Amino acid sequence: MSPRPDLRGRLAAARAQREHAGLSRRVRACDVLPGGRRMVGGRVLTDFCGNDYLGLASHRDLVTALTRAAVAEGVGTGAAHLVSGHRGEHHALEEELAEWTGRERAVLFSTGVMANLGALQALLGAGAMPGREAALCVQDKLNHASLIDGAQLAGAALRRYPHGDAAAAARQLDAQPGLPALLATDGVFSMDGDIAPLAALASLCRERATLLYVDDAHGMGVLGPAGAGSVAAAGLGSKDVPVLMGTLGKALGCAGAFVAGDADIMDAIVQFARPYIYTTAMPAALAAATRAALRLVREDSEGRRERLAANVARFRAGATALGLPLMPSTTAIQPLLLGDAGSAVAAARLLEQAGFLVVAIRPPTVPPGGARLRITLSAAHSEARVDALLDALARIPLPAQAIAV
Amino acid sequence: MSPRPDLRGRLAAARAQREHAGLSRRVRACDVLPGGRRMVGGRVLTDFCGNDYLGLASHRDLVTALTRAAVAEGVGTGAAHLVSGHRGEHHALEEELAEWTGRERAVLFSTGVMANLGALQALLGAGAMPGREAALCVQDKLNHASLIDGAQLAGAALRRYPHGDAAAAARQLDAQPGLPALLATDGVFSMDGDIAPLAALASLCRERATLLYVDDAHGMGVLGPAGAGSVAAAGLGSKDVPVLMGTLGKALGCAGAFVAGDADIMDAIVQFARPYIYTTAMPAALAAATRAALRLVREDSEGRRERLAANVARFRAGATALGLPLMPSTTAIQPLLLGDAGSAVAAARLLEQAGFLVVAIRPPTVPPGGARLRITLSAAHSEARVDALLDALARIPLPAQAIAV
Repeated sequence: MSPRPDLRGRLAAARAQREHAGLSRRVRACDVLPGGRRMVGGRVLTDFCGNDYLGLASHRDLVTALTRAAVAEGVGTGAAHLVSGHRGEHHALEEELAEWTGRERAVLFSTGVMANLGALQALLGAGAMPGREAALCVQDKLNHASLIDGAQLAGAALRRYPHGDAAAAARQLDAQPGLPALLATDGVFSMDGDIAPLAALASLCRERATLLYVDDAHGMGVLGPAGAGSVAAAGLGSKDVPVLMGTLGKALGCAGAFVAGDADIMDAIVQFARPYIYTTAMPAALAAATRAALRLVREDSEGRRERLAANVARFRAGATALGLPLMPSTTAIQPLLLGDAGSAVAAARLLEQAGFLVVAIRPPTVPPGGARLRITLSAAHSEARVDALLDALARIPLPAQAIAV
Repeated sequence: MSPRPDLRGRLAAARAQREHAGLSRRVRACDVLPGGRRMVGGRVLTDFCGNDYLGLASHRDLVTALTRAAVAEGVGTGAAHLVSGHRGEHHALEEELAEWTGRERAVLFSTGVMANLGALQALLGAGAMPGREAALCVQDKLNHASLIDGAQLAGAALRRYPHGDAAAAARQLDAQPGLPALLATDGVFSMDGDIAPLAALASLCRERATLLYVDDAHGMGVLGPAGAGSVAAAGLGSKDVPVLMGTLGKALGCAGAFVAGDADIMDAIVQFARPYIYTTAMPAALAAATRAALRLVREDSEGRRERLAANVARFRAGATALGLPLMPSTTAIQPLLLGDAGSAVAAARLLEQAGFLVVAIRPPTVPPGGARLRITLSAAHSEARVDALLDALARIPLPAQAIAV
């Protein structure tokens, strides 16, 4: 009998291959300095790559709410929601999230990944016949990894349509009419910054008895009336988008996520989503901080959404004048498409030397040839910092083919 | 063309079936009162079902560390570890966890579910040939749901051996010698409280070129020298158990999880675990609180592990004297096996009326016929509360077949 192939050896080969392609990832500590700048490798940098779009993560209301709840309730909850981990703070936050998004009920998860994995596992998998494909799951090619993984976890038949192509999505649904179906899309795409054709997707799903699921991680808090997200911005409601997922660690400045929708769908998630049932509930103090963030987001009395929009417009105008390889995004995510990974890494390094933290995004996070600088704007950036970033970009040599895109 | 089967209708049927079987789950808010008791539905209860085994969740050191770090760094990190979300607090905690467990490196995750899904996705899936089974994953039948789901997510061939049966595990490995293999087991089983045959599993994995992965969510902090867990308690090290997973939301009283092992294996997780790469890093304040918890756990100057062990012994002695259906567990998890779901729910309700919060655990969390009261002890329980729980249990009618088990 030949010896068993070695798992560790296979991992070493996969790591070596990635290293050889210049695509290995390294973790570095990025500390926060007073005023929001970062200390990275001994250098003070302005962060233009995070998702704290409204600059709320360090807001004193959030910190105060976190602190007060921790003093009253401790740090960890020590149990699952269905055991003894569900606190009044979770309950109140779920009610407020449901009201904000105009849904009957919201269910909290510890992270967006857990929300997508859990909700898709439940919605696609519950009641399926064992040993057969659970359901059809049609997804945009550029959806977040956790949506793709959720379909795999559910044992669903996964079909991915070209980015933003609603007609192709309809054809994929029509090609498999025998399976119950769900269509999942990002609201705002995390690496491109563009917005899904939500009205067209809602319409084709309605005509095809298909459940529409929107992951609005990067739209929630930023877009639409009261910051209720890309779905609200498109004038769509619960009937159009029956399952709405949002995260609490980006524009809301905290951590965690939620899924919202009609009570029957939410109850199916509570009954069947194993990443909901078999996990310790998130700290009640984080729920309290998120409630504080939600009040700030809904009222927006400091005009943060407007400041963010002004920064986006300022950056795009400047980058256009410089001939930089902008992508068609109107959101806080403003990638510069550079093409090859080496160019993106080199550009990120030069920006760092100039005082800016911008991360090169390389395959497999983006398609081959799609390496980019993923620049993100925040309401916390001053106009002067945006201008300084543009100045730095003007001084960086960028590959010719990228500028021609 | 017949109309597409309706996903929402299938979900309704699955929910109705569960409801009809008396197995529906309901979320209730359980608030924390000063002194650690709970307020549930207007009643003050002592919690005997959570996993805060050392009573650290409300310790002032944790609350102080959380607060201090939140004031300095804000609440959310706003970015993934590989972008700008990795702070000095995460780095320090990873180093301390590695040192505590005697491993080269530790990698933080936001939850235990994410750690198991991510680590198994990476270790079983990276470098696999597309379209073929990625690897063989042999697991104990009673493993945590997230280990089972991790194998599914990785596209591995999953085989589950009878609970605790190392010889059966060896046979399953021997039956498929052509695939690279990983054996995963809980250290302490979450619903039974017993400990895996770790030395036997380590030995058979060594002989079969199989990577051993231990999820020690319920052993870490509680068992072994310096609370380093069930693996350390069995006298095993990194060579015996190359992949060690632990959670930070149970005995450590915070939230989150980690995977620890040799540097090459940890780097494979960083490169290939999508639930690590594509998620917002946990709040730095939680990492700071966990560092405070870890200091308390390692020193244990207040003798919490001893108090917990005394409470476990006291409970078992009393329950044995009462003829209660104890299971063979020596840990903080002391289930009473009642058999049918209705009996378990009725018993939980009577305990609640007597002032105790104990949750009935029913299928599918446990096998059919395995419904139980999952009673958990904590160092925070006084002897008087343990005695009062025993008194309440003595007054509850329990089904005859259960007592005969």
